[in-house]
Amino acid sequence: MHRTHTCGELNLSNLNQEVVLSGWVQKSRDLGGTTFIDVRDRYGLTQLVVNTDDADDLRTKVKDLGREFVIKVTGTVVERSNKNPKMSTGDIEIKVSDLEILNIAKLPPFMIEDETDGGDELRMKYRYLDLRRNPVRNNLILRHKMAQEIRKYLDAEGFLEVETPVLIKSTPEGARDFVVPSRMNPGEFYALPQSPQTFKQLLMVSGFDRYFQIVKCFRDEDLRADRQPEFTQIDCEMAFIEQEDILNMFEGLTRHMFKNVKGIEFDAFPRMHYADAMRLYGSDKPDIRFGMEFVSLTPTLSKGEGETGEGAEDLVKGFGFPVFDNAEFVVGINAKGAASYTRKQLDELTDFIKRPQIGATGLIYMRHNEDGSLKSSVDKFYNEEQLQKWSVAFKTEPGDLVLILSGVKEKARKQLNELRLEMGNRLGLRDKNRFAPLWVIDFPLLEWDEETERYHAMHHPFTSPKPEDIEMLDTDPGNVRANAYDLVINGTEIGGGSIRIHDKKLQSLMFKHLGFSPEEAQKQFGFLLEAFEYGAPPHGGIAFGFDRLVSILAGLDSIRDVIAFPKNNSGRDVMIDSPSTIDDKQKKELSIETTV
Amino acid sequence: MHRTHTCGELNLSNLNQEVVLSGWVQKSRDLGGTTFIDVRDRYGLTQLVVNTDDADDLRTKVKDLGREFVIKVTGTVVERSNKNPKMSTGDIEIKVSDLEILNIAKLPPFMIEDETDGGDELRMKYRYLDLRRNPVRNNLILRHKMAQEIRKYLDAEGFLEVETPVLIKSTPEGARDFVVPSRMNPGEFYALPQSPQTFKQLLMVSGFDRYFQIVKCFRDEDLRADRQPEFTQIDCEMAFIEQEDILNMFEGLTRHMFKNVKGIEFDAFPRMHYADAMRLYGSDKPDIRFGMEFVSLTPTLSKGEGETGEGAEDLVKGFGFPVFDNAEFVVGINAKGAASYTRKQLDELTDFIKRPQIGATGLIYMRHNEDGSLKSSVDKFYNEEQLQKWSVAFKTEPGDLVLILSGVKEKARKQLNELRLEMGNRLGLRDKNRFAPLWVIDFPLLEWDEETERYHAMHHPFTSPKPEDIEMLDTDPGNVRANAYDLVINGTEIGGGSIRIHDKKLQSLMFKHLGFSPEEAQKQFGFLLEAFEYGAPPHGGIAFGFDRLVSILAGLDSIRDVIAFPKNNSGRDVMIDSPSTIDDKQKKELSIETTV
Repeated sequence: MHRTHTCGELNLSNLNQEVVLSGWVQKSRDLGGTTFIDVRDRYGLTQLVVNTDDADDLRTKVKDLGREFVIKVTGTVVERSNKNPKMSTGDIEIKVSDLEILNIAKLPPFMIEDETDGGDELRMKYRYLDLRRNPVRNNLILRHKMAQEIRKYLDAEGFLEVETPVLIKSTPEGARDFVVPSRMNPGEFYALPQSPQTFKQLLMVSGFDRYFQIVKCFRDEDLRADRQPEFTQIDCEMAFIEQEDILNMFEGLTRHMFKNVKGIEFDAFPRMHYADAMRLYGSDKPDIRFGMEFVSLTPTLSKGEGETGEGAEDLVKGFGFPVFDNAEFVVGINAKGAASYTRKQLDELTDFIKRPQIGATGLIYMRHNEDGSLKSSVDKFYNEEQLQKWSVAFKTEPGDLVLILSGVKEKARKQLNELRLEMGNRLGLRDKNRFAPLWVIDFPLLEWDEETERYHAMHHPFTSPKPEDIEMLDTDPGNVRANAYDLVINGTEIGGGSIRIHDKKLQSLMFKHLGFSPEEAQKQFGFLLEAFEYGAPPHGGIAFGFDRLVSILAGLDSIRDVIAFPKNNSGRDVMIDSPSTIDDKQKKELSIETTV
Repeated sequence: MHRTHTCGELNLSNLNQEVVLSGWVQKSRDLGGTTFIDVRDRYGLTQLVVNTDDADDLRTKVKDLGREFVIKVTGTVVERSNKNPKMSTGDIEIKVSDLEILNIAKLPPFMIEDETDGGDELRMKYRYLDLRRNPVRNNLILRHKMAQEIRKYLDAEGFLEVETPVLIKSTPEGARDFVVPSRMNPGEFYALPQSPQTFKQLLMVSGFDRYFQIVKCFRDEDLRADRQPEFTQIDCEMAFIEQEDILNMFEGLTRHMFKNVKGIEFDAFPRMHYADAMRLYGSDKPDIRFGMEFVSLTPTLSKGEGETGEGAEDLVKGFGFPVFDNAEFVVGINAKGAASYTRKQLDELTDFIKRPQIGATGLIYMRHNEDGSLKSSVDKFYNEEQLQKWSVAFKTEPGDLVLILSGVKEKARKQLNELRLEMGNRLGLRDKNRFAPLWVIDFPLLEWDEETERYHAMHHPFTSPKPEDIEMLDTDPGNVRANAYDLVINGTEIGGGSIRIHDKKLQSLMFKHLGFSPEEAQKQFGFLLEAFEYGAPPHGGIAFGFDRLVSILAGLDSIRDVIAFPKNNSGRDVMIDSPSTIDDKQKKELSIETTV
């Protein structure tokens, strides 16, 4: 027998028991002839003791032990004189009577400790050693628990997990597909799914009613720091429902998960219209752990936003400051308590917003000093009276710092969103252990694509418009709202979905507005459109990015450490050295050649 | 609101309630002005009634209804005069007050009934309609339940579900890989995993201890009737265990599943040595729902099998019958109660064993007639006294039929295995609602490959030999037994695994015997071998074919109907018409060309 107990469970209740443990040598140290060894497994650490009066044979073996050797020990549980309250087994140690080296180990290329000296590349190359570290393993344990809880909730709600195929068909729309040459069908290719979207809609046509799947999806995109070519989605769809049913069901799922995995309970999730999110946060995924809402200093430009009266008075134009005079839009935030920012700190912020990925040209600030005075970087153009109006608009108090950007509206909002998040970080307002979920609803149905000069479906071509907005499809397509929604936590989109179109006429109208001829629509979506002719029920769904969701619950910025074997930014698995070349015989069988 | 209830739940306790139901029109029939409509959803059928005295508007809509129209009805639950005890809702019907057609439907190409008139090809093309049929949907509900129960059991036993990558590396050994050209790494390819074997072993090196995953795997093989290019595996691995631990753990899993999904409880699973399975059933996956064990009429040939004394006397040779005289091996079964088989039935059996896929040349039989007399098809050569000895060997009673094949040992056994299963079918001994699990253990480590004239690993190169057999590696490699085991149910292998080698020296020895040079071993298994140098624990595992397992519990012969969207024998999905050609731009981006 390899063990009677794990390395994480023995305590004073086990005193004097003879036990067998197996695990890895975490460390071994000799103190005046007595050797203390920490043996580690997935469950914890236990201290072993070998004394000077133990058998020579045993003492020799102990001397040979290196870090990460795999051992099996037999011994007796004794009370420690020097207890360690930080360890679950810290009250006891094992007086070893027998020790067997199950396997030797080379010295690992980095320390197997919570804080390691291994760099990213090295950790990835030896991922199997990195996975021995507690923080990495705990992320994967969290992931396992989350998947279990998700399935438990959805099963109880009558959802059926149905596996959809991985070898499917390439479609020219959307992100790039990974493709798989078919040996049995020479010259033809399968594609790996970017999502099971069409299959889950087909399952609704089949009457499956409530479907889910935790499923790998694939996207051949140029990888940003935090994207993976293969990623995991919690994919869900329901029939005979309205948007409200979906929001309630998956708010319930999110609550269940947080409650059972993190012990956190939420109030009802706030809901925010897309237009408000853009107006108040310059983002469709606002981090509402903190306020710092946008204040516009120019009258609003597009209809539907001025309703609140916000920005009706122009506070910045006509004072001789050319930057604001020439700007379409001037917008700022009140960073409460940041009035004491030094010149250097303000310069850092200016540098931040001037970084190419943000691209702002300049930052205007106004301090509301502790003595009540207002001091701006544009005092030359705006007198005390004008600044007072700013102070009212931003609701400043002594100690506050107002930060203002200007430019083209949409761009300025995006830039200010970045600055707001940066200030949130700097002011410690984005605590990783606090979670602020939010539904963003009423997304636009269409978005204008500058490159192709036509409208694209913001979500996908099967997303339904709000019934009351359908008539605007002809007159004002950009302002038609969709039955589409995102779930956002802490400024990260973790899920999104929509109510689908199930009516053939409406679908044809949509295709027309997306610039598809009936023939093109047929070619791309033929089998789904055909399926819809055999009795499609009203349906809708949502999909969550599981990697992202785990990383948020784990308090991590990157998804990489919640994935057991991730790929790097070039899509390579450096551990197994993949992708790699294949031999000519294999290519010949697949009827392909490589051109490099 | 689309529904207050499902179509499967209303009964007399709901009398007089106003309800809303949504679903598909199963059928509609008019009886003297009163229309009865069966509306269907995933949960059942409910009968709707519209009378002659109902509003014209409603009656017009009802007249328009076709099969598979999607409707929403409001009405009152009333007691049926003509109850249908076969339906869960058979005591009631809905007196309709309002009906809305949510979607119209074309007439389906086949009947949406339990027994359909649709052929296989048509059902697959319109799989989304096929999935509306109860038997098909019920298979997928069973599959969902099984997956849930498997996860529940393994989670409770401390297993962690860890997702391993789908885009991995091609290895030249084993079945053909599906490959995926990498755009970011031109000329290089990922491969889709045939199993997560190496990753689960790496997870053991990482200390994960108890791993599982229900995971898609891929094999580019020529598809037999019951193979799919993508299939689902329940993949499991444990560290610090012996073979006995694995058998117990996964016997427990199987019990749990049968108990919670089918309400069936098992005694301890019998275990059979591979050698006995071959000797008694001519198969490494015997169907033990019935006996009909093999009886050899020639002395056994290889050592280790004669120990029981079975076949020590030669009962067939030297009597002038050239077929038996020239045969290496003569072996038969006693088909109890089949003595009454007619000439025609016996001819059918002969035809059966002569089919090319079985390839036997002739069948000898002996009847033990009801009057006690023995009558064989080779009476010319064997007299009553000789036949009496056969009768003793086969333990025949009046009414029994002995069927005998001869030839080269291994081949004759395989042929007789087919005949035994056929007789099991004909005699009604293979009831799909009876389940007979069996562990087959002590598989050979190596198997001789005629083509390459060398030994191959029967399981895989990391499978460990029985310690007591290791010394035979040099002298008698073909008889070295492995720590390898299969779980068999009703004659179908549903799982298999092994205890792995974790010792570097033993692994090198294995590679030597498999004909790998150290360089070749390094090239093919480099990163795993390297990982093993950093402290590999003793470990082993098992993998179950999930599709197959579901099909057995569903009582089906084919796995196709337990897969939502299966592919046909050419690897095509005829519904989405995949695989398909991709455009030249896509190929160019991937640095590939097609050669057809």
